[in-house]
Amino acid sequence: MSNQIVIAGPSSQGLAVNLANYLDVQVYATENKVFPDGECYLRIDIENDTVLEDADVLIVQTTGANAAGDQNQRIMELIMMISAAKRAKASKIRVINPYFAYSRQDKAFRPGECLFATEVLKWIERAGATEFYTIDIHAETIFDAVDIPTFNLDPMEILAQIVKDRNVINPIVICPDKGAYERSRAFARYLGEDIPVVQFNKTRDVKTGEITMEGDIDVNGREVIIADDIIATGGTMARALGIAKKAGAKSIYAVGTHPLLIKNATYKLLKAGTTEIIGSDTIDSIAMQASMAEVIGKAIKKN
Amino acid sequence: MSNQIVIAGPSSQGLAVNLANYLDVQVYATENKVFPDGECYLRIDIENDTVLEDADVLIVQTTGANAAGDQNQRIMELIMMISAAKRAKASKIRVINPYFAYSRQDKAFRPGECLFATEVLKWIERAGATEFYTIDIHAETIFDAVDIPTFNLDPMEILAQIVKDRNVINPIVICPDKGAYERSRAFARYLGEDIPVVQFNKTRDVKTGEITMEGDIDVNGREVIIADDIIATGGTMARALGIAKKAGAKSIYAVGTHPLLIKNATYKLLKAGTTEIIGSDTIDSIAMQASMAEVIGKAIKKN
Amino acid sequence: MSNQIVIAGPSSQGLAVNLANYLDVQVYATENKVFPDGECYLRIDIENDTVLEDADVLIVQTTGANAAGDQNQRIMELIMMISAAKRAKASKIRVINPYFAYSRQDKAFRPGECLFATEVLKWIERAGATEFYTIDIHAETIFDAVDIPTFNLDPMEILAQIVKDRNVINPIVICPDKGAYERSRAFARYLGEDIPVVQFNKTRDVKTGEITMEGDIDVNGREVIIADDIIATGGTMARALGIAKKAGAKSIYAVGTHPLLIKNATYKLLKAGTTEIIGSDTIDSIAMQASMAEVIGKAIKKN
Amino acid sequence: MSNQIVIAGPSSQGLAVNLANYLDVQVYATENKVFPDGECYLRIDIENDTVLEDADVLIVQTTGANAAGDQNQRIMELIMMISAAKRAKASKIRVINPYFAYSRQDKAFRPGECLFATEVLKWIERAGATEFYTIDIHAETIFDAVDIPTFNLDPMEILAQIVKDRNVINPIVICPDKGAYERSRAFARYLGEDIPVVQFNKTRDVKTGEITMEGDIDVNGREVIIADDIIATGGTMARALGIAKKAGAKSIYAVGTHPLLIKNATYKLLKAGTTEIIGSDTIDSIAMQASMAEVIGKAIKKN
Repeated sequence: MSNQIVIAGPSSQGLAVNLANYLDVQVYATENKVFPDGECYLRIDIENDTVLEDADVLIVQTTGANAAGDQNQRIMELIMMISAAKRAKASKIRVINPYFAYSRQDKAFRPGECLFATEVLKWIERAGATEFYTIDIHAETIFDAVDIPTFNLDPMEILAQIVKDRNVINPIVICPDKGAYERSRAFARYLGEDIPVVQFNKTRDVKTGEITMEGDIDVNGREVIIADDIIATGGTMARALGIAKKAGAKSIYAVGTHPLLIKNATYKLLKAGTTEIIGSDTIDSIAMQASMAEVIGKAIKKN
Repeated sequence: MSNQIVIAGPSSQGLAVNLANYLDVQVYATENKVFPDGECYLRIDIENDTVLEDADVLIVQTTGANAAGDQNQRIMELIMMISAAKRAKASKIRVINPYFAYSRQDKAFRPGECLFATEVLKWIERAGATEFYTIDIHAETIFDAVDIPTFNLDPMEILAQIVKDRNVINPIVICPDKGAYERSRAFARYLGEDIPVVQFNKTRDVKTGEITMEGDIDVNGREVIIADDIIATGGTMARALGIAKKAGAKSIYAVGTHPLLIKNATYKLLKAGTTEIIGSDTIDSIAMQASMAEVIGKAIKKN
Repeated sequence: MSNQIVIAGPSSQGLAVNLANYLDVQVYATENKVFPDGECYLRIDIENDTVLEDADVLIVQTTGANAAGDQNQRIMELIMMISAAKRAKASKIRVINPYFAYSRQDKAFRPGECLFATEVLKWIERAGATEFYTIDIHAETIFDAVDIPTFNLDPMEILAQIVKDRNVINPIVICPDKGAYERSRAFARYLGEDIPVVQFNKTRDVKTGEITMEGDIDVNGREVIIADDIIATGGTMARALGIAKKAGAKSIYAVGTHPLLIKNATYKLLKAGTTEIIGSDTIDSIAMQASMAEVIGKAIKKN
Repeated sequence: MSNQIVIAGPSSQGLAVNLANYLDVQVYATENKVFPDGECYLRIDIENDTVLEDADVLIVQTTGANAAGDQNQRIMELIMMISAAKRAKASKIRVINPYFAYSRQDKAFRPGECLFATEVLKWIERAGATEFYTIDIHAETIFDAVDIPTFNLDPMEILAQIVKDRNVINPIVICPDKGAYERSRAFARYLGEDIPVVQFNKTRDVKTGEITMEGDIDVNGREVIIADDIIATGGTMARALGIAKKAGAKSIYAVGTHPLLIKNATYKLLKAGTTEIIGSDTIDSIAMQASMAEVIGKAIKKN
């Protein structure tokens, strides 16, 4: 049986160590830097390539931006790790890419555009990945671009558990737009039986631009939760939560698998009265409350 | 009495809203961007400059790097806010700069160097700041460079409280080098009465480079904590905690006011067995567990 | 008489050496880098601080962005050099900042804005500069913000000489908008006696958006030149030159002191048929044709 | 016969327009930007994808860093153009990548490394490139990694012509290390018949570290030239040229296909007395003296 090894990519160090602990296997870090001319460098920090020979190598690296590098650098580093593992004759190279950069460039809208998400995924495959794992990807259709097994893991049970740990008594899930209904429904089921999901109707007053709620929604004294895949600039989420807060919600939670928190997202959410922003460790953020190590570990064990 | 207003700088949005909530005053965000030529732009997002006229303006902006900008950009934005508040005739401009960038460039070691930390602080003063607040600065001596009142706030009581919330029963504080003894002693007092502080002796074995502990330190079954101002690459901290872990510590906590977590710091700390990395919101990080809003708010009320 | 020394800032190495050669004085470089946490470091590369003691130090550093650093980093490095020279007890610290970053942020248009250009200039003064030299600054009014002598040097004679070196026989200067008339007039005088300046009338066809020329302008077979301070995205310049080209101009020259060449500027200018883009060494660019060393050197000698 | 079209990638605008002019074909630019979350975007600026259908598309994009983006961004943009051309059903996609980033990562020296240069080249192939052109690549062996036709074009004749345009009368080529002898020999032949090539012997004095010249080299009153592929930090080149200068050379030229000019390279070269740094337009630089448009155009016509 092959030896299992985790590689902690520079952008997912915590998740990688947690995963290794969950699987009870060895974890290695990388040595990485940027040369004065701007080119990146990375090597897996092993003493001898035989460490990886015939091994089942799990490479953990998110491709979200953080203070230590942008998405492009993170992608380059990921390919460097895959390629190094292949050179060292790993028997399996399983890529765990919890936040898949460029996932929203999965369609062409204007002339001269490409589907860049699929190009990145194909690069990962061609470099040597034998399996690809990600969390809550924007659109699973991009998986069609490759032949290797792909897995889109569901973070919502873990995120719901974090909310439950806050001792919510009377929760209600709100859904700011129709596209998020299925997710909201699923999240509510993880929260408990018979948790209501309320669909907001994004009717805008032509003059004021204000969103209005439709129907008899009574959130007074209740814990209100919105759950989504990405929290980007947080505008819609903040507005919906703000409406709930003004309507008497006891507490309001902003849940997002990938809390990008771009621009003034944190300000908007907190100013709307958000009790807590709850995200996962798919990317580095101030909202990292839940680790996906177990979700990933279970999937690894199964495959 | 003057109207108090908080400005949420782009790099400290959460702390700013929390501070405004603590003080029960209005908070404004900024509009900021980078032009195609690379120059930054920021305006305080107010409808009219009279909002700031005669106001006691609290500008909250850390100067740590994060995914949305580097230290230099954060400093430029800070000056832009100060200058805009001055132009709008604020009566007081109190700068809350929770992590002060370049604080370690406070001495000259080689010919041709400058004391850049003092240049940055003097710029803040000359741009119009009337008071300067920071948290756990590397060396208070740089305050001598300016005439305005300066405040170096102590985060350790709040950070100790986070550790206490983990229900530690039998804690022991370890101190990896002599320079950190005073801090460790103070931290232990915040943790409780008679909490021992153990000074590690950083004797290195000339051959192995390994750190050895001096004296009869029994950490078996106990919660071991290290507290420092900055967690940079985490090397010393990870090594000391790892020794404690191997000596039977039940859990080990890495506490740092400013968790920079550079390079493989997270990997090293977690691989050493660290139970939790606990930091504050002076900079954005995955270890943001404690808000400095109350510490700052109290200081603001007193001055 | 004091010893004169040139410091070659990292962003103006060529201009600094040229200036030192012109003045026949010693030039020193710097040692500079960016730490893993993102903070910059710079020291003047001297063996002993006494080298600068009592010296007349000329610090040459542009604050335009290039591959090796952005404007903010360039400003930080400039302050580091000034401060180091002051610490080393230089008798004069003359700053030569050929392209002054943020020069266009010299006015406030919206609430909450500041005049950041003046803040940067004031920082330079307060850090220890005793004189300030720049080339073709966007608006000289920002000089009012400081007390030290300031000099805005004129690059146009040198740039006109470059055009003359191209053996133009029958040149004509065109001026795409009224604001540039004085500059165009001056440039034409440097080119020769009786060189005509044609003012374009930027009337736009409401439907097509196309610029139309007013009057009887005969550019057929002639060398057409536009001269401006900054070439940013190059849109207006490319359009005006394109009109001249279509009207039969033999060659067309785009002259700019500071060729920022943002976005598709190079493409637009060359696609319009531009014979050559001619700029100076106030910033690094592909259009660096003329050195400002002599212009600066003469001013230094005079003051 | 298929319609030929040039796409001017954001990093090679000038070279692309020059190439299109040489080939007398249509050229299109791109629309590109970076989103607030850090992801790049690029589309080929065409009104309809049919423009590219069945066309022979020449994509010109260097992958050197410049002020408008780093190597990684340039690679992403290149793939975006290839992929968009493929989507639009171009019949040929010829990639002209004048400076190939990561070319020096073509070998593995330590455990855990990969051959990243080949990964980048393979990505270009798999994304849809049908031919690959570059200039003076570090090692042609990386071409073995792909199946498409690859062309490594020789810039030296053009660069030699620039030197000849300086009216050198009595030139001599010096060669600072053995590895560059073949190149130096070839360069000398382009300069003229019987131009001597002198091999420096890099013997270092153990105490002073100074390079010494071997044999009877008389450079007194002559024009001395060094030609190499990359000018990186410029150390060796500056030292060798400096020796020639001190030995009485009339003028000294630093010729490099790719003038990266990292760190203090410009300072070192000019301080050594370099008359001119002469480079090509494979990357943006202050030394851009020669366009590779003709060399590329001829190769395109032949294939």
